[in-house]
Amino acid sequence: MKIGFIGLGQMGAPIALNLIQAGHELKVWNRSSEKTIPLIAAGAQAAKDPQDCASQDIVFSILSDDQAAENIAFGPSGLLKNHHPTLHVTMSTISPALVDCMAAAHRSQGGDLVSAPVFGRPLAAQAAKLFIIAAGTEKSLDLCEPLFNIIGQRTIRVGAAPQAANLIKLCGNFMIMSAVESLAEAMTLAKKSGVDKKTLLHALTSTIFTAPLYETYGQILIEQKFKPAGFAAPLGLKDMKLVSQVAETSRTPMPFLGILRDHILSAIAQEGEDVDWSAIAQVVEKDAAAH
Amino acid sequence: MKIGFIGLGQMGAPIALNLIQAGHELKVWNRSSEKTIPLIAAGAQAAKDPQDCASQDIVFSILSDDQAAENIAFGPSGLLKNHHPTLHVTMSTISPALVDCMAAAHRSQGGDLVSAPVFGRPLAAQAAKLFIIAAGTEKSLDLCEPLFNIIGQRTIRVGAAPQAANLIKLCGNFMIMSAVESLAEAMTLAKKSGVDKKTLLHALTSTIFTAPLYETYGQILIEQKFKPAGFAAPLGLKDMKLVSQVAETSRTPMPFLGILRDHILSAIAQEGEDVDWSAIAQVVEKDAAAH
Amino acid sequence: MKIGFIGLGQMGAPIALNLIQAGHELKVWNRSSEKTIPLIAAGAQAAKDPQDCASQDIVFSILSDDQAAENIAFGPSGLLKNHHPTLHVTMSTISPALVDCMAAAHRSQGGDLVSAPVFGRPLAAQAAKLFIIAAGTEKSLDLCEPLFNIIGQRTIRVGAAPQAANLIKLCGNFMIMSAVESLAEAMTLAKKSGVDKKTLLHALTSTIFTAPLYETYGQILIEQKFKPAGFAAPLGLKDMKLVSQVAETSRTPMPFLGILRDHILSAIAQEGEDVDWSAIAQVVEKDAAAH
Amino acid sequence: MKIGFIGLGQMGAPIALNLIQAGHELKVWNRSSEKTIPLIAAGAQAAKDPQDCASQDIVFSILSDDQAAENIAFGPSGLLKNHHPTLHVTMSTISPALVDCMAAAHRSQGGDLVSAPVFGRPLAAQAAKLFIIAAGTEKSLDLCEPLFNIIGQRTIRVGAAPQAANLIKLCGNFMIMSAVESLAEAMTLAKKSGVDKKTLLHALTSTIFTAPLYETYGQILIEQKFKPAGFAAPLGLKDMKLVSQVAETSRTPMPFLGILRDHILSAIAQEGEDVDWSAIAQVVEKDAAAH
Repeated sequence: MKIGFIGLGQMGAPIALNLIQAGHELKVWNRSSEKTIPLIAAGAQAAKDPQDCASQDIVFSILSDDQAAENIAFGPSGLLKNHHPTLHVTMSTISPALVDCMAAAHRSQGGDLVSAPVFGRPLAAQAAKLFIIAAGTEKSLDLCEPLFNIIGQRTIRVGAAPQAANLIKLCGNFMIMSAVESLAEAMTLAKKSGVDKKTLLHALTSTIFTAPLYETYGQILIEQKFKPAGFAAPLGLKDMKLVSQVAETSRTPMPFLGILRDHILSAIAQEGEDVDWSAIAQVVEKDAAAH
Repeated sequence: MKIGFIGLGQMGAPIALNLIQAGHELKVWNRSSEKTIPLIAAGAQAAKDPQDCASQDIVFSILSDDQAAENIAFGPSGLLKNHHPTLHVTMSTISPALVDCMAAAHRSQGGDLVSAPVFGRPLAAQAAKLFIIAAGTEKSLDLCEPLFNIIGQRTIRVGAAPQAANLIKLCGNFMIMSAVESLAEAMTLAKKSGVDKKTLLHALTSTIFTAPLYETYGQILIEQKFKPAGFAAPLGLKDMKLVSQVAETSRTPMPFLGILRDHILSAIAQEGEDVDWSAIAQVVEKDAAAH
Repeated sequence: MKIGFIGLGQMGAPIALNLIQAGHELKVWNRSSEKTIPLIAAGAQAAKDPQDCASQDIVFSILSDDQAAENIAFGPSGLLKNHHPTLHVTMSTISPALVDCMAAAHRSQGGDLVSAPVFGRPLAAQAAKLFIIAAGTEKSLDLCEPLFNIIGQRTIRVGAAPQAANLIKLCGNFMIMSAVESLAEAMTLAKKSGVDKKTLLHALTSTIFTAPLYETYGQILIEQKFKPAGFAAPLGLKDMKLVSQVAETSRTPMPFLGILRDHILSAIAQEGEDVDWSAIAQVVEKDAAAH
Repeated sequence: MKIGFIGLGQMGAPIALNLIQAGHELKVWNRSSEKTIPLIAAGAQAAKDPQDCASQDIVFSILSDDQAAENIAFGPSGLLKNHHPTLHVTMSTISPALVDCMAAAHRSQGGDLVSAPVFGRPLAAQAAKLFIIAAGTEKSLDLCEPLFNIIGQRTIRVGAAPQAANLIKLCGNFMIMSAVESLAEAMTLAKKSGVDKKTLLHALTSTIFTAPLYETYGQILIEQKFKPAGFAAPLGLKDMKLVSQVAETSRTPMPFLGILRDHILSAIAQEGEDVDWSAIAQVVEKDAAAH
């Protein structure tokens, strides 16, 4: 299939590579063009701007924030400028409101939008082990399905409204961060009470906290390995701000959210912009003078 | 083996029954004696007081709070009154400080204490599917091991200091409640933004939140089935107070804990003493006028 | 003096009237023109657009949010469109970042900006009892001083950087709301423990909490008189969002802020958009089932 | 009048001295007897135990916590042991529940209890500038009134139930600490945004935050003068725990309380036991990496 692919960051590059290796023809674009080099070496073609991708059968985009996503869609050389009936698959973690707006615009031009944000870190993207949360029309989702199977281990369809996928992704990130915070508080309590963090983690993950995320983050917290960032704290902050926006719009109080936001601000203030979002655990330890 | 068994509540009764059915001789005691009837019908003998259990090879106790546990150990007819070298296995979720104190007292009389609180609701106790967090001397733990295998699906040893098992149990309950709160906040956000709770839960539990507790509590939250209580809110409040005590003693701030405590107080204030601790989700919904 | 005056809401109208009654010539503008009628009746002249005010000796503006303020300054018929060296006195509670941006634009046109947000409710504006927090160049502040004396009881100069006045105003609103929340929690605790709210308030305000705001809000909380709104909850929410933006930009965690934001969201969700911001006290009572 | 006086700490000693200097005969007792020396030098007589004070016309006690107060009342040589109809004036900041219990015991012996906790730091005690929150029967309060006038600047009667005075005192301390926290958060935000703390404090205290406590604590926060402690953090923690107990008993969620408790735990963990309770401001600054 002829695929346009926009956004070749830590997540986008390995996803695009997996599509190329599965035999698809990719036309790729990235804001800083040097990131296209390894993809071109692997067989991709360079697009001259986002709009240039719109003529492909399908266009994937995976960008870091609302501003970048808005620019790709509505900017001067954006996908929507040439009024082509594009099928756009947005994989970015961006606001449901923007996705809703993009969907309407694509449909008004005879195209369609699928929203398909993913759970998984860069290593999972390389290993094609992503979880894909996909929303859109059945017809468009059916079209995407074989491509999703190449890049992920499982796709969950969450209905016809694209923005629902983004809301669910944001809820997931909020819940991951809540899990990390609760683990950090428990570990700090254990440490200050003379119980080894490893003993605590082993007891919990081998009984009721069997989800791999507890094991993964538990190890990071024990080794205090917050740099280099797997998922940088400012991106975590951005996600908590997106949750916050939805919470404000829908008039939903979320007490855990306030704490998570504060702790990620502390982590950035104390450790710098380049720490992992799990460095909120460092904040918890410092507050207890336990580090 | 001749076993003394003290405390025949929702958890104690099925555990004792499993021991009887495995062929052990039980001498049972409960504050309100009518709860001994079904056990006696199953072959147990009635003890006239806790002290009367102390002559058995081993004594199990599982009680609802520190006061009850203290009374069983140090009270006028308590286990420690006859100065018998008892091996006492306490399965209660009580304060690490009390367990430490009980351990010292038993050892000073030539006996020993194993602390073995469990994860699992009454149904898991009936099905012998409990997870047992056990701490004590290797020798005493080896002695208990075959009995633990009868009543649980897995035993995790967490070291020689009995109170460590209680700290870990309390951390586990704190983390379960944090998981329920985060799920409740996410579900409320979804509901108020037009995304179905079931869709959210399915997307999360089939990808990254695979631990069964998310599925179990997710269903309770969707059905809003907070009565009858599987684990009553006042017991949850008691556990959060025990965590709070350890946090104060060890000078450990725990921001999530404050929120959990407040929400369980609200749940009791709004719904009564007999709701499940997961009714904190109801509080979250009411705060958003989403119920 | 010839004064342009933009924004004739609950605060702007009485301020403008006080200036007219002191003998100044006002040219007034408001988005919905019917609000100019009483002012014209009092002697003011109608401006045809914001830009039309720019030719006066000095222009006051007092608007409800960043969007309105931005439009007045930078919009198609905004003050800055005619490149006139205007002295603009912004009294709006808006973001420090926008004020900084407006100041730079006015100065680049040979004009100047004074930021002068006020403390006080509409009744205080009518009575010319406002407190004015003013920042800007000494020269411009000296020029404004006689006018400030007409509309307020006291002006506090807080330096040369206009945005500092806005930051201080936002801090003040954050602290007022914190005071209301703490009073609400204390009153609810008293009520649920059998102590009369009035007794509590009297004991506190006649000893250590002598600032009038405790008395004022204390009465509102006792009478539960949250409608009609003196200061509407959505405006309070807007202010907390502005504080939140500054906190995020400057990497400053503010734990009280998260709670205030959540309670004002609850108040709006439960009571509607037209309640006073002090209805956060209602949320506190409902959470305790004390209403 | 013949007065028994129990508890000669930072607050008790200057209060007792003021009573002596006003011409009253004091019989004093303190757990560590060396603290009686300056009082005896000033004319007081030494009691051999608390019970020995019970024969005076009236007995004042001011102790640091529930345990000490319980011991003075119910202990082996406590006031209630000799079954004398004592009029006991308790000025300690202790739990309403204990005060209620003490009142019942005194009344059952034909005596009476007045609860009269005070607002004010040691300097205010020396200067006889305390605020006294008094509760008890009108008759007993009338008897105490002239003595209260010697030691304080104002007495507020809050009804017949003695424990109400303690609840109000606890509410007051909770609100003071909330005021300090909100000021600390605002000052940290200002500092990190380039606005001087002094400017902020001056603008606030000369307009709407006119209660002296804002000025007093504001200066401490600006100078970061947290040692020596005027009111030690562990005493502040004790008070927040008493509030917490009342909140739990009455099923009242108090979100600010959780934050205050955490911050005072951090302050103690980071700075040691001998800091002032206002060192919660240091915690706020460290969390923002602003110290």
